[in-house]
Order: sequence, then structure tokens, then C-alpha cells
Amino acid sequence: MSVNSFGHLFRVTTWGESHGPALGATVDGCPPGIGLDEAMLQVWLDRRKPGQSRYTTQRREPDQVRILSGVFEGQTTGTPIQLLIENTDQRSKDYSEIAEKFRPGHADITYWQKYGIRDYRGGGRSSARETAARVAAGGVARAALAEMVPGLKITGYMVQMGPHRIDRTRFDAGEIKYNPFWVPDATAAELWAGYLDELRKSGNSVGAVVEVTAAGVPAGLGAPVYGKLDTDLAAAAMSINAVKGVEIGEGMAAAELTGEANADEIFPGNDGQPVYSSNHAGGILGGISTGQDVVLRFAVKPTSSILNPRQTITRTGAATEIVTKGRHDPCVGIRAVPVGEAMVACVLLDHVLLHRGQIGENRGRIG
Amino acid sequence: MSVNSFGHLFRVTTWGESHGPALGATVDGCPPGIGLDEAMLQVWLDRRKPGQSRYTTQRREPDQVRILSGVFEGQTTGTPIQLLIENTDQRSKDYSEIAEKFRPGHADITYWQKYGIRDYRGGGRSSARETAARVAAGGVARAALAEMVPGLKITGYMVQMGPHRIDRTRFDAGEIKYNPFWVPDATAAELWAGYLDELRKSGNSVGAVVEVTAAGVPAGLGAPVYGKLDTDLAAAAMSINAVKGVEIGEGMAAAELTGEANADEIFPGNDGQPVYSSNHAGGILGGISTGQDVVLRFAVKPTSSILNPRQTITRTGAATEIVTKGRHDPCVGIRAVPVGEAMVACVLLDHVLLHRGQIGENRGRIG
Amino acid sequence: MSVNSFGHLFRVTTWGESHGPALGATVDGCPPGIGLDEAMLQVWLDRRKPGQSRYTTQRREPDQVRILSGVFEGQTTGTPIQLLIENTDQRSKDYSEIAEKFRPGHADITYWQKYGIRDYRGGGRSSARETAARVAAGGVARAALAEMVPGLKITGYMVQMGPHRIDRTRFDAGEIKYNPFWVPDATAAELWAGYLDELRKSGNSVGAVVEVTAAGVPAGLGAPVYGKLDTDLAAAAMSINAVKGVEIGEGMAAAELTGEANADEIFPGNDGQPVYSSNHAGGILGGISTGQDVVLRFAVKPTSSILNPRQTITRTGAATEIVTKGRHDPCVGIRAVPVGEAMVACVLLDHVLLHRGQIGENRGRIG
Amino acid sequence: MSVNSFGHLFRVTTWGESHGPALGATVDGCPPGIGLDEAMLQVWLDRRKPGQSRYTTQRREPDQVRILSGVFEGQTTGTPIQLLIENTDQRSKDYSEIAEKFRPGHADITYWQKYGIRDYRGGGRSSARETAARVAAGGVARAALAEMVPGLKITGYMVQMGPHRIDRTRFDAGEIKYNPFWVPDATAAELWAGYLDELRKSGNSVGAVVEVTAAGVPAGLGAPVYGKLDTDLAAAAMSINAVKGVEIGEGMAAAELTGEANADEIFPGNDGQPVYSSNHAGGILGGISTGQDVVLRFAVKPTSSILNPRQTITRTGAATEIVTKGRHDPCVGIRAVPVGEAMVACVLLDHVLLHRGQIGENRGRIG
Repeated sequence: MSVNSFGHLFRVTTWGESHGPALGATVDGCPPGIGLDEAMLQVWLDRRKPGQSRYTTQRREPDQVRILSGVFEGQTTGTPIQLLIENTDQRSKDYSEIAEKFRPGHADITYWQKYGIRDYRGGGRSSARETAARVAAGGVARAALAEMVPGLKITGYMVQMGPHRIDRTRFDAGEIKYNPFWVPDATAAELWAGYLDELRKSGNSVGAVVEVTAAGVPAGLGAPVYGKLDTDLAAAAMSINAVKGVEIGEGMAAAELTGEANADEIFPGNDGQPVYSSNHAGGILGGISTGQDVVLRFAVKPTSSILNPRQTITRTGAATEIVTKGRHDPCVGIRAVPVGEAMVACVLLDHVLLHRGQIGENRGRIG
Repeated sequence: MSVNSFGHLFRVTTWGESHGPALGATVDGCPPGIGLDEAMLQVWLDRRKPGQSRYTTQRREPDQVRILSGVFEGQTTGTPIQLLIENTDQRSKDYSEIAEKFRPGHADITYWQKYGIRDYRGGGRSSARETAARVAAGGVARAALAEMVPGLKITGYMVQMGPHRIDRTRFDAGEIKYNPFWVPDATAAELWAGYLDELRKSGNSVGAVVEVTAAGVPAGLGAPVYGKLDTDLAAAAMSINAVKGVEIGEGMAAAELTGEANADEIFPGNDGQPVYSSNHAGGILGGISTGQDVVLRFAVKPTSSILNPRQTITRTGAATEIVTKGRHDPCVGIRAVPVGEAMVACVLLDHVLLHRGQIGENRGRIG
Repeated sequence: MSVNSFGHLFRVTTWGESHGPALGATVDGCPPGIGLDEAMLQVWLDRRKPGQSRYTTQRREPDQVRILSGVFEGQTTGTPIQLLIENTDQRSKDYSEIAEKFRPGHADITYWQKYGIRDYRGGGRSSARETAARVAAGGVARAALAEMVPGLKITGYMVQMGPHRIDRTRFDAGEIKYNPFWVPDATAAELWAGYLDELRKSGNSVGAVVEVTAAGVPAGLGAPVYGKLDTDLAAAAMSINAVKGVEIGEGMAAAELTGEANADEIFPGNDGQPVYSSNHAGGILGGISTGQDVVLRFAVKPTSSILNPRQTITRTGAATEIVTKGRHDPCVGIRAVPVGEAMVACVLLDHVLLHRGQIGENRGRIG
Repeated sequence: MSVNSFGHLFRVTTWGESHGPALGATVDGCPPGIGLDEAMLQVWLDRRKPGQSRYTTQRREPDQVRILSGVFEGQTTGTPIQLLIENTDQRSKDYSEIAEKFRPGHADITYWQKYGIRDYRGGGRSSARETAARVAAGGVARAALAEMVPGLKITGYMVQMGPHRIDRTRFDAGEIKYNPFWVPDATAAELWAGYLDELRKSGNSVGAVVEVTAAGVPAGLGAPVYGKLDTDLAAAAMSINAVKGVEIGEGMAAAELTGEANADEIFPGNDGQPVYSSNHAGGILGGISTGQDVVLRFAVKPTSSILNPRQTITRTGAATEIVTKGRHDPCVGIRAVPVGEAMVACVLLDHVLLHRGQIGENRGRIG
């Protein structure tokens, strides 16, 4: 019931603010005997780390993760894993402006209204820094999945930046790691670089769409009603900062399809197991995985911190104007890619454990 | 942790299958002293009831709800409210086809794979009939909200059917109740009627987009990270049968906006409280309500039961073809409108209680 | 988070009041494919049923349970099982006295203070009738355990009534079913009959201690800290009406032992698995089952409804006197025996599922 | 659902092992605006700290707590509070014996059977060191309670050590802090000192009973069935290491009382509110607080680490003998006193928040 936790059996609670001494994740429910060390987590954190290209914030955080518990001699023990990341790049600067003015598009105003107290030096819990803890927790989930569901592969990438969508006919997963946008399309990468440079220089920002697919997900994960695999994926994605829309498979476009066009027809595969003619469903039928690729997409709104002056009010209710200086991401969607992957990993591991708990092995045979 | 429950403090567990004797909802955590009787719930169930126009399934279910507990002398007692709806229209017919063949787009195959047992006469828990229980539970939430947050108003309607979107310049909430599509646009209603008649006659079906807005939501509901108001709304919407996409405010379109265009600027209102120049955020900033209208949208895929033959397999893994005869909705999105409203009501009441539990009254003053 | 639920993966929510139309349990998380029908549950309900001897309330309730969902063709489907028991013996009588006066020892006064509304005809949710729903749910748990942990055997019995404790040297489990007290000691049964007759005639009542043992519990269930098997057993027992104390193994008497006396020494058994010299621990070490008998005991306070007049106040705060007439159990501990068994069954099944979820099979080998 | 968490709205998750780098607690759900700093927590930790008298383990841990998040400028922010305590006194010593042999009465064997991996240098999560995190979390709860329920006072003390019970006629709360046993009876303190010295020298240990009372608890906290205040107190107490029995009010002795003797009669008090003739119920009726003192008692078994050799087996299943050398508490019940207080504080704050969430203010008036 903690409002800072997600997951059922594999349960992650993140803690920490952007300008406190540290932040982290308390990860409970990990199976024991999973090989794990800090380097295995660091590799994922390094992908999310700021300051890796001119397209992400120049805040310099090493985001070094420490494992404080739950791992012994290189293996998980089955007890809570505490992951700690220190905040190191806290420049002393003049916070008087953002302390008194609410930045439009940020949580400043609602946070203040609700709690009546917040660390005016940054976004507190609403800062994108919180997602570092998710990525660390996702690394734990990946380690467990690697041993429990060996074929499973999670891949995140951008499919849209502002008005520019990728051309799916040029999709090349091999390209993802070679460009600063995690985009599976070299042509798009080049175009987007020019586009974002311009936006960045003008002090503006832009939104994006991230897609995460999981291949090798076994059939049978999820449940028909509220414990649906897609319900938990949607919640996980919507819980990421700045996300405003979530799609499974066809997503919003499903509204435009007819039943005839939308049906993923089923055929007997070579191994006797079902194969599908298409994957409009995004790998989930009635809340339960089909064995096809699970396809999740989410839209990230443009960074709200921009150099163009915006109208706002002060804490005393006076009208004023604000310019959010500082080191910001012109497209926060970029760094949402590893975060999206991490959330998918956590949800999948959780459902693997839930399924094993209630069901054991899948009970229905085909063929 | 129940996979058939949702909500934190206002917690709803639905139960029952489409072809069993009854279905219902166990509603826990309702505040005591709320005026409630069966008629107050029936009004919402009647809106969802099948067979009200030629555009919804001709299954004849009165969907009469009974309150078995938690209400005494017309008031809630604060203890669990059991809502029971009997299944009455269970025609005896030949189920041999759907017992052996998996209907594409339905949960038949995944349900079977996971559980190894299912009531072959219908969708079991995956049937849209389950949503009757949600509507009943939503009626309880509405009754509580009516007393606790008097100004709050939840309105659901369709904004898209297949390729046809409403023209927002013609938006007229007064029209919603006068057409079978809950569409706030009389011109669209006429167009859609013709469009859907044609589809229906051809044995096909189509998807839709439903929008639910909540006006009068107080600022301060939600939390910055996983207990976000939008996270819970997204989960609630995605948990509805056939939903494939969920949006808050700008939704997926947020990806196309610049930071400048997306910022909802803030001004001092007449009463000293903030007013906003726009509502791209859909009434939620950093997971916490702003006091603006909360705007949720979700896409419903086309009904998978269609008369056009589709390829599939049998339980023994043999290739075959299927035609799903029977009484089906050509656009299941229509009946998703009252369901979406019900889910929004449940989520809002839950967050009202959560907020009161942790915070009491909003603590931060403006002005 | 529902305050009317217990269990993690096997989750039971009871609902209903003593004087409403019905009560029951919503049971979620049961594994699919478990053989189950109403008769299998009725056998347990019949043991708890009132009016079976002159030592229990003469209220005549058949406590007939109906399964409304979650079972198909004699097997559980893995979806929520709704268990419904109608209240039939609701005599019309004059409730004006208990409507206005708070019965000492009952929840009347606290219920009123908290909720401000209650069904003055009985105890509402605080009535012992609520435990019928637990017994029904426990029957579901027993059915699942019978298939999943075949050797497991749960046995409840009374070990103390008022000042009279059983003589453990005469312990004979075979006697339990032959006397109205579920006491494993024929001599005690006789003595207690006379003792209770006298109390009953004088309009008084008395407390009791119930013991429930579970043999054949596999080693490894539970967790070291809050998810301890004994924590959940303690909570389950304390949640039963009128229970004031809970013990595992030595229980409160552990305080009097030295470390030397309390140590259950360990020896290699014939099959290479550990055997213990004694079972002071009650089958649980560090929250995790050892494989020995799990031993739970709880004290039930005397029925608060007695014929001897007691001082109390009215709702308006005036001093008055009350005599609680009606059909009451002189020793409510008797009917707590099947309830205790049911709770133990639910907790054990829940931990079997939790263990399988996180761990799969026990990972540490001995020998 | 985390097995390392407790609480509903005020939710504490502890993490860390006795021989890892650190341990701590993640505390979610604390109301915002509560004055809090490390010194306010340290005062409680210092009471639990080892090495304060010759009657507790000579392990030298400063148990210095750091607040890593959730507090800003001396006030709680309403976001998760991370409490970290470093383990500093980790002597390098020869662990080969306890690595291979299971210590009787300890969780070594069950931990190993379940998880197949454990830190052989100590008890891991089952170590009494875990309770330091509880005491820190309890300090947070106390700070919130001090502001929200000003009159509330929680007092823990020992009432029994081995065969020696306190004489209640000599009860003097003022004595508690003047002796190493937290015993409210100076005569007992003297007697116990001699008794425990002897036991300690002989390498033996002994059990104890701890009582915790809470005065000033408002009426109305709790719920009639599973969310009972006493259910949560019982679970909280039973979750403490080495606890084997839990009592509320009369506890196990309730079994011996008649209904006449057990009834707490009710009278109108001077302020129109109810007063009771006695408190057999321990301040809780039907799961809901009455406004009287809440009285919780629990039995702590004797420390299992003793110098007298005990029979056991090795991991390979061979019979052997073990002597548990090292720095152990001869009566671990002593240090359970501040732990019990902390647990009661956490449960009470949680129920204060739950009550406010569902009910707001008590709704039923008397008079």
C-alpha cells in the first residue's frame, strides 16, 4: 500500500530526493541464488546517466550504485536488497527564484499544495533523478530473469521525437546503441540530431515516444482482470516522470481497426505450439501473455524546464514570469528509454513469480 | 495482492463468470454514513445494460443488483458492501465449437494455457459481463463522492469510433444522453449510426476511444511516484476488457509538443487560487491533481467476436476456421463509457481517502 | 489493504453481518484444478454450526454454503471463489434494549463510537457468525492443501476450559470427535460437561484455550522478518472474535525456560533429514517452518452475553443496567475450534504459494 | 506484500543483515510537516544499543542512525524516509564452526533449507540486529504521534524474567529507567540482577515477558475483523525475534475467567464519556480501541546462543555438538523492551492514519 512501491511479489520501493544526500531502492522478494554484483547494475545505470551527449542534462552524476544488503558472496540471498546511489553533483547556486515561483509543467505547485513542504532546490521525489533507482532495481530484475527465463530479451528504443517518427521499414535493432537517441534507424538518428540541436539552442524542448519490447516472454503470465500483465505494464509506464500516454500493441490506433483487421489469427507452429499471423495485441490477450513479443509504448511530454519565459505565480499568489535556467534535458524521452526497460523487467519478473506462486507450471496443453 | 482487486483504501474485488449463477463485487473501505440503496446503483447499471439499442449485444440481462451487506437503514456502515448480480440470460445452445476452438482476439487461448480449465460457454472472467460489477462498485464510489466532494462531476463519452473522431468545436455535453453512442456531438451521432449499421450488418466490428473527465477534483490528490493519480487511472482503464491504450491530458500527442507549447501557464485566480491557461496536463502534475479537470482517454479494440471466418487452432493444435456467432456488440466501446466512468469514480474516492489518511487537509497555502 | 481481508497470495475477504440477508467470503488466489464442491465445504461448516449440543447457542442456522463462482465442473478455475451463506434464523424480537444500551465486553460501544451506525439487532461484523465465512474459506484452503501437500493434517481441539486443563498424558486425538468440546481427553470431556452445565444454568459463561496443530508441514515456509509463518498465524488467530492471547510452541511459558532447556537439539534422521529432540519452537524457527508439527494455541475470552446484570451506559450516556438475554454460547471457545483450524489452513496454503512464488523448491540441501 | 514490510498506510520495510555493511528501514507514508532529526531517533536507538550493562551482548555498535531522505529543514516531507545504520563491530574471527553447524534454536537450519544461501557469520536477517531498524522506524512513528495524538504515551517494561514475575502491587513506572532490566519494581530489579548474573556465568540464558502499554489512545482505532488493532499488535509483536506468545489485556488468562468476572462494566464519566470499571480487554473491544490503556504483552524465549554444548548436525547431515561462543545477551528479552515500544508506536500511527482515511473523525457520539 506504500505509494512509493510497485510490484506484488517482486516489490520495489524507491526513496530519496534529487538534492538530498542519496537515493535508492529497497528491493524485496528477489529469488535467492541469483548471481549479482554492483557491476551488473552499473552497466544499466551508465546508460541512463546524464551528461553522455549534448542531448542530455550536463549535471555530472556518476550514479555509482552500492548494494548494502541482500547479496552474499555474489549471490542474492532472498532477503531485501538495498541499492544506494549518492547524489554528488549538487552545485551551490541561487535557488531563491524556484523556491518562490512554481515552474509551469513541473510538480512544484501540486507538491506544495499537498505537502506544504518541499526541497526548493529541485523536484524532490518528482525529479527525474528518482528513475536512477528504478534502473538499479531493474538491473536486479534482469539478473533474475536471465537465470529464470533464459531466452527473454528486453529492448527499448525511441520511435518518435516531436513530429518525427521512425520509418519502421528501416528498423534495425543493431543501430540502437550507436546513436544518442537509442533509435533503431540511422537515418532518423541523423535527422533528429539536427532537429534537437536547434531546439536545444533555442532553449526549447520536445516530447517523444519510447517503445519497449520483450521477446521470449512465456505464455501464461498475468490474470484476466485487475492483475493483468498489461494493467501492470501500463501502471509501471505511467508512473515514470512526464509520461502521459501508454499503449500495448496497437494502442490508441486499435480504435481505428475493424474486428477483421485486428484479429491475430492463430496457426499451429512447427513445435505444435500456436503461432500468430500478426501481433496487434502486443503479446497479451485478456491480460495474459501469448508468448509473442510484448510491446509497450509510452509518450513522454517535453521537458518543462525551458529558457523561454512563462507566466506563473509565486507562493504568495502573485503573478510573475519564470525562466528555468540550469542543466536540463532538451528531450527527456531519451533517458526514459533505459527507465522503460527497467520497469518492464520488474513487471515481468514479478509476474513470473506470481504465476509460479498461484499456478506452478502452465496447466493447459495445446496439442 | 489479490489479482482481482483494485484500490488501496477503497478496495473493490470483483468475482464471477459470465456463465455462472451470479457475479458481483466486494467493496471494502467505504466510509460509513453514506446514503446508499439499490436504486442508486441500478441507475448506473441500466446505462451499461446490454440490449438497449441495436448497437449493443442482444443478450437480455436485467443486471439487477442486490446489496447483501454493508448498508443498514439506507446508510453505509463502513463494513464490506457485497453487490450481487444474477446471470439470467443463459441460453442453452451448442458450445461444442467454442469449447474446442480458440477465438482469435479473445482470451480463450491464454486462459486455457495458464489455468488449464475454463467455462467454455463464455469468456469466464474475461467476459465483458465482469464490468457490470465494476459499474455497481462505481455507483458506491459515486455515492460517497457526492457527499464528500460535492462539486465533483464525472462525465464519460465517446470521442472516436473507427476512423471517425468528434469535432471538438461541436462538443455539447448535453447531447451525450440523447444518442446510443454517448457522443457529445449530434452530427457525429448521426454519422456513426449509419457507419455502425453497415459494419454490424457485414458481421464486422470496430474500435473506439472513450474519454472520461472529472470536474471539481480538489488539488492535492495523488503522490509523486508510484501512487500517482495518473498511474492508478491508467491501471484502472487498462484493466477494462479490450482496452489497449490510455492517455492523460495530451496523451500520446504530448510527444509532438514543444516545452513551450505544452506548458500550462499559471495565473492568480479571482479567489487567490491558481488558474491555468490550458490543460495539456489533464489535471495532474507530478502525479498530483491540480484542481483542473482530470482528463482520461482510452482506446477500446474492436469486438473480437465477428461473423467473418478467421483462422485458428483447436485445443488439440489442429488448424481450423471459426465464425463467432451469437449476440455481440459491434462496437464494445459504447458500453465501455459507463465502465470508464465507474473506474474513475473508484480511483478518485480511493485517492480522497488516501489523501485524508496521510495528509488530512492540503498543507500548502497559496497566497 | 482491505481491513476485511487476510492472506497474501491466497487472499480471503469476508463480508456480511449477523442480521443481514447473507454473509460470505470472496476467496482469491486459489490454484486452478483443485477438486471442489459445496459438500466439501459443508462438512466443515457443519462442525461450526450452532445448536449441535446444549453447550452452544440455540440459534438454528443451517449455514448452507453456496459456491457462486470460481468452480467449474467440480474444479477450481483459479479465479475468485464466492462463498455465500444465507442468514435464516432471524427472529423478530424486541431489540430496543440492545439498540440503546452498550453490552459490556461486546464491540457495541467501540463500533458505535467509530462508525456512528450499526445494526442494533446483533454484533454486525463483530458477531461470531462472521466466522462461518472463515470456515468456508478454510474448506477451500484444505482442498488445495490436500492436493498440494498430501501429508498435511490440521487438528484443532480444546486444551483448557476455565480453570480446567487437559491432562496431556491422557491425550487421545481419537477422542476429539466424540465429545461436544473437541477435547482429546475423555475424562476431561466428562468433567467439563458438568462444569459447563452449571455455568450455563447460572447464566454465566467461561473462557477456553484452543490448540491447533499441523502435522506434515514442509520445512521452509515463512520468512525471517515480517512475513514469518508465526506472525501470520498469530494475526490469523488474534483476528478471531474474543481471542486475547496467542502462542506458538511453548508460548508464554517460554519466558520461564533457560536456553539449555528450550533448545530443540537436532539429530540426523533415518532419511538423512533432521530430527529434533523436542518441539519447544512449535515447528517454527526464525519465522520459517522446520518440518516438525506447527503448534498454535489461543485463548478465547468468556462470552460477554450473560444473564447476570451488568452496569453499562446508554447511547445518551446515562447509567443503566443490562442483562443479555438470548441464545448464547456459554463457552464460545468450543465453536472456535473449527474456526482456528480454518485459519491455520488458510495461512498454510498462503505460505505454500508464497514459498513457491519466490523460491520454487527449497534450495538448501542437508546431507 | 513484501515479506519484509509491515503497516498499511505507515509502512516500514527493514533491510540489512547483521554482518553486511549496513542495515536500515525504509519508512513510507509518514505525514508531512512532522519535526524530525537524527537526534530524535538516536535517543531510542541508544536504549536498545548493546553493551550498556553486563546483562546485554558486549558487541560494541554505536547504532548511529542517518536520515538519508524524506526530511527537509527539520521536517518530514511526506515522502519515504530512509534510515541507515552502519554495522561497525564486525570482528574478524573464525566462523568455520557456525558456517558448518546449525545452532539449535536459531534460524540457521530453516534459513539454509529455504534459501540455500546465508551469511554464515551471523543470523543474517534473523539476527536481533534487525530490530535496530525497527527502533529507528518507531522513532519516526513516535514523532508523528507526538504531534497528532499529543496525550499518547507508550511505556514498555519487563514483567517477568524466567520464573520471577514482578509484584504488581509494587509497580512504579518511575523505576523503569533506573535499572538495566526496565523493570517497574526496584525489588525485582535487585533480585533479577543476582539471578541473571548466575545464569550468565554458567553460560546459560533465560526467557522473559515484556509488557507495553499505551495510554491516551483515542477510542475508535481499528476495525471489527482482520484490520483489528489487536491483530496488528499481535502480528507486530510476534514478528520480533524470539517472541513465542502474545497477549492483549488478560491474554491467556482470559480462558480462566467467567463472563461475569471478565466484563469491563461501563459508567458515565465526568465529561460524559464512558469510563470502565476494569480493563480486562486491554483497551480493545471487537478490534477497536476503547480509549482505555492498550495493554500488550509478549514472551521472549531464552537466547539460543549458550555456552553449554548442544547436539546438532552439520550441513552434510552429520551429528555433532556445538557451543555458541561469542558476545550474547543472557536474556534477550531486556533489549526487546524498546523494540516492543517501537512496534506499538508504528502500529498506533498506522491505525491513526487508517482511521482518518476511512472515517475522518469518530462518527458516533455518546451523550
